[in-house]
Amino acid sequence: MLAQRPSPLVHAEPFLPSDREAVYRAIETRRDVRDQFLPDPIPEPVIARLLKAAHAAPSVGFMQPWNFLLVRSEDKRRAVWEAFNRANEEAVTMFEGERRERYRSLKLEGILKAPLSICVTCDPTRGGKVVLGRTHNPRMDVYSTVCAVQNLWLAARAEGIGIGWVSIFHDSDIRPIFGIPDHVEIVAWLCAGYVNELYAEPELSVKGWRQRLPLEELVFEESWGERKP
Amino acid sequence: MLAQRPSPLVHAEPFLPSDREAVYRAIETRRDVRDQFLPDPIPEPVIARLLKAAHAAPSVGFMQPWNFLLVRSEDKRRAVWEAFNRANEEAVTMFEGERRERYRSLKLEGILKAPLSICVTCDPTRGGKVVLGRTHNPRMDVYSTVCAVQNLWLAARAEGIGIGWVSIFHDSDIRPIFGIPDHVEIVAWLCAGYVNELYAEPELSVKGWRQRLPLEELVFEESWGERKP
Repeated sequence: MLAQRPSPLVHAEPFLPSDREAVYRAIETRRDVRDQFLPDPIPEPVIARLLKAAHAAPSVGFMQPWNFLLVRSEDKRRAVWEAFNRANEEAVTMFEGERRERYRSLKLEGILKAPLSICVTCDPTRGGKVVLGRTHNPRMDVYSTVCAVQNLWLAARAEGIGIGWVSIFHDSDIRPIFGIPDHVEIVAWLCAGYVNELYAEPELSVKGWRQRLPLEELVFEESWGERKP
Repeated sequence: MLAQRPSPLVHAEPFLPSDREAVYRAIETRRDVRDQFLPDPIPEPVIARLLKAAHAAPSVGFMQPWNFLLVRSEDKRRAVWEAFNRANEEAVTMFEGERRERYRSLKLEGILKAPLSICVTCDPTRGGKVVLGRTHNPRMDVYSTVCAVQNLWLAARAEGIGIGWVSIFHDSDIRPIFGIPDHVEIVAWLCAGYVNELYAEPELSVKGWRQRLPLEELVFEESWGERKP
């Protein structure tokens, strides 16, 4: 008689209320951090846990298109900050009047203050030319990579580590600093460091840039624009 | 004397180990579910918690570009399934030989089996023409929307709810079913339902489609391709 192969399915109950609340607390108290970083280095086992969380993200066709480039070198972070600064000077001019002054007053990155940066990239070639699930939406690979970023961000919150996502730079300024190949997309520049304090509400809301939208206005039922009666 | 304004910053300690483990458990045991859905309806307060988690996602310039279209109607889900089925017939032909047979054998969606679908969209016009942080990467709005999807997915795991992300369809087949405006992007079609069981490992790995990559091969230090000594 052949031995029965163990089922690849396992029991999956809902979490106990206290565990469920922990998940919601990570989600609700996660912030995009620009200035609260402490200089303390993040121990290797903690970095390993963050990366493992990112690597557990869903990926289209299980292609796992991500790479994680860890940058601690101050010289390299300074070069990235300079790329940010150049792009941000361009960004300032895109806003008008009072909005421009307000934009200028915002701190938008912690590249030099946070002791660690993590550049998260997407290699669209990783799964070969035809990738299961990417056949009709070519950007599913980048979406997978963003899921990895969000996993890492939530894990960081639980570890007491703040994350700030910097998006204001020209890729062409960043790529040569690290030798990132042309076919690999830079998805996120993340600044990471321990924090003692976080904003109770998103910083852009606290600073009067934009307020949270009422969720009920964003939810439709059965058809676009239809709300619950 | 003026009263001092309360600080918008609050103390942000690391989670207690048991709470941290709960966050990691949601991340590690989350699966892309295609077939384990139970027919039980998801109560409204639970759906509200999932959507609140999604709405707590980071968004570029705090633009909150997402909408959530809840679809329970079997007729509408059947129309979406038909759109999937047409696209999937195209997808089959893109794989060759043994790979094609294996592709055909996979169950790739639970649109009809799961009692609820959630279509998550991105409105790139929501924050006006110039959005803080989107000035140099026009896709930051979609990335924000994907973060909302991942928040919802992890919250669902904690609730005992499975989520399956369907990406195999032509947008032009889905849009008219719900009257989704042309300027709004369809980012994710999510199938949602309670589950009793989940795969212990990602289903595509269990079914021999593709295996998990060793994380250490995906991590670089200071420069592309450089590994820890």
